[in-house]
Amino acid sequence: MKVQRITEPGGPEVLALEERPEPVPGPGEVLVRVRASALNRADLLQIRGFYPAPPDVPPDVPGLEYAGEVAAVGPRTRRFKVGDRVMGLVGGGAWSEYVITHEREALPMPEGMDFADAAALPEAYLTAYDALVLQGEMKPGETVLIHAVASGVGSAAALLCKASGVCVVGTGRSAAKLKRASEWGVARTVLCASSPPSFADVVRAETRGRGADLCLDLVGGDYVPETLSALAPRGRLMLVGMVAGTSTEVNLGMVLTKRLRVTGTVLRSRPVEEKMALSQSAERHLLPLFRSGALKPVVDAVMPMSELRQGLERMERNDSVGKLVVRW
Amino acid sequence: MKVQRITEPGGPEVLALEERPEPVPGPGEVLVRVRASALNRADLLQIRGFYPAPPDVPPDVPGLEYAGEVAAVGPRTRRFKVGDRVMGLVGGGAWSEYVITHEREALPMPEGMDFADAAALPEAYLTAYDALVLQGEMKPGETVLIHAVASGVGSAAALLCKASGVCVVGTGRSAAKLKRASEWGVARTVLCASSPPSFADVVRAETRGRGADLCLDLVGGDYVPETLSALAPRGRLMLVGMVAGTSTEVNLGMVLTKRLRVTGTVLRSRPVEEKMALSQSAERHLLPLFRSGALKPVVDAVMPMSELRQGLERMERNDSVGKLVVRW
Repeated sequence: MKVQRITEPGGPEVLALEERPEPVPGPGEVLVRVRASALNRADLLQIRGFYPAPPDVPPDVPGLEYAGEVAAVGPRTRRFKVGDRVMGLVGGGAWSEYVITHEREALPMPEGMDFADAAALPEAYLTAYDALVLQGEMKPGETVLIHAVASGVGSAAALLCKASGVCVVGTGRSAAKLKRASEWGVARTVLCASSPPSFADVVRAETRGRGADLCLDLVGGDYVPETLSALAPRGRLMLVGMVAGTSTEVNLGMVLTKRLRVTGTVLRSRPVEEKMALSQSAERHLLPLFRSGALKPVVDAVMPMSELRQGLERMERNDSVGKLVVRW
Repeated sequence: MKVQRITEPGGPEVLALEERPEPVPGPGEVLVRVRASALNRADLLQIRGFYPAPPDVPPDVPGLEYAGEVAAVGPRTRRFKVGDRVMGLVGGGAWSEYVITHEREALPMPEGMDFADAAALPEAYLTAYDALVLQGEMKPGETVLIHAVASGVGSAAALLCKASGVCVVGTGRSAAKLKRASEWGVARTVLCASSPPSFADVVRAETRGRGADLCLDLVGGDYVPETLSALAPRGRLMLVGMVAGTSTEVNLGMVLTKRLRVTGTVLRSRPVEEKMALSQSAERHLLPLFRSGALKPVVDAVMPMSELRQGLERMERNDSVGKLVVRW
């Protein structure tokens, strides 16, 4: 099978298509013929050598999500059979013609969805669902602040909020990209062109002075102090990304008096039982919203795997809105 | 009735005993003849004018906890009758011969406990119980890091941990005070005499490299970065006090990759329904542990109300271990 291999640490140019033997599924596992995968910022970090793959994953083949067909099943595999259309997250190795996953980590593709859309779904929506619903305890009637709302996770989170009766205020660094946000039901956008960003006044104005109940933060850095200021009493901050910086000054007095909760989260390094539990929970609570049409993948572009390098360069330039998909 | 009134913002010397009319209990309320109260750092802040009382509380009479007898009941009061021995938290005004509270915020005094011990109980134990059990989700087998372990809340928290099958590492700034910690079941103490403090290595050594599952932090300031380092993956930091400072630099990368949770908490400003719920939960889960002898108030000294000023000065000097109690 063909894989996109990291030949040495560096930029998108260090990836090369190579041949490798197909893996064999073990007990409870499925072998998936990958039809499409998608790009994530974590892939860029891994290619540069800053984000090593977890154990039991090919260390030199990036790719965190896939959509495809089951090509073979291992012993004691019950949920899927050969030919089933599946999608899901893996710890790495999805930029490959075949990938192995445990059947309880895989999700059935929504009926009628094509592979390119399905490949754009797992990382964005499972991240948003886990952070907002499972950990963030988002409830109808609340207001959620989403940073980088035009990103893959940001746009998925906005659609999930809209489908859940939740009002969204979204921030971004590009006016052109923020124009798209109304398509995802975002009530109000704030352009944050300079540093430090300023959005707390807008959030308070949108919430009659109360502040946001929850924030999905894909940015970190100097967004954090302003976010704490923008949160309502008992507000929750879910820290999912840190593209603006990995360190910041925090006003503990505000955290204490407003009784705020700050939670860091990451999917990739979780143990297998947590990954399975997230997939099963998403199958129960998230997939019905795709069948009803309330949720849909937000796809920036679909390109052949041979143009992966251009896709990564586009992601590096922050030009994309939603997900970049590659297909075999 | 006599009250300790703040005559002007300042130190302990601005308090003066004055006469004031007794309040009248409303529906669901009880009038308590206060026999003893206790001292808290928040009282010092309030006396200096930095921590105003919440609404519906005398603004000029400090005192956050009491033990005494029910002297009168209002209409539709069911849980208590005249003569019952009760204790509890109030938003202020407990340094008074009488105090009014809703009956669902009051707790029955454990049988056989005297007023001085009972007055030392509410703030320390309800704070520790709420932070560790209700919000911190403490479970048997875990290791909890307690900063300022010789304080009123710290010593109560240590005893609650011991009673719950939880191992404690405690920090403090006085070797003499830390010597007492073994009485409360603390497995290991760390003297933090200099700034920034250093305790993460000891915590890791006590936990086979894993780190603490939970931290009860009454100190804040530059303890926070070292605490984040001392926490295990998915560790929880409950921020309850900030005597070391109200601001600090935070490593967001550590929060994210270890999936940490930081929660600020304060009791006094909570709405009445939350205060009632905490009291009812504590009656169910905390009071049985006093009856069994697993928990006991840690009392530094009991003094007459006429010596309140000396007590406050002792608290300011950080000389006390456990609670300072004043009685009428």
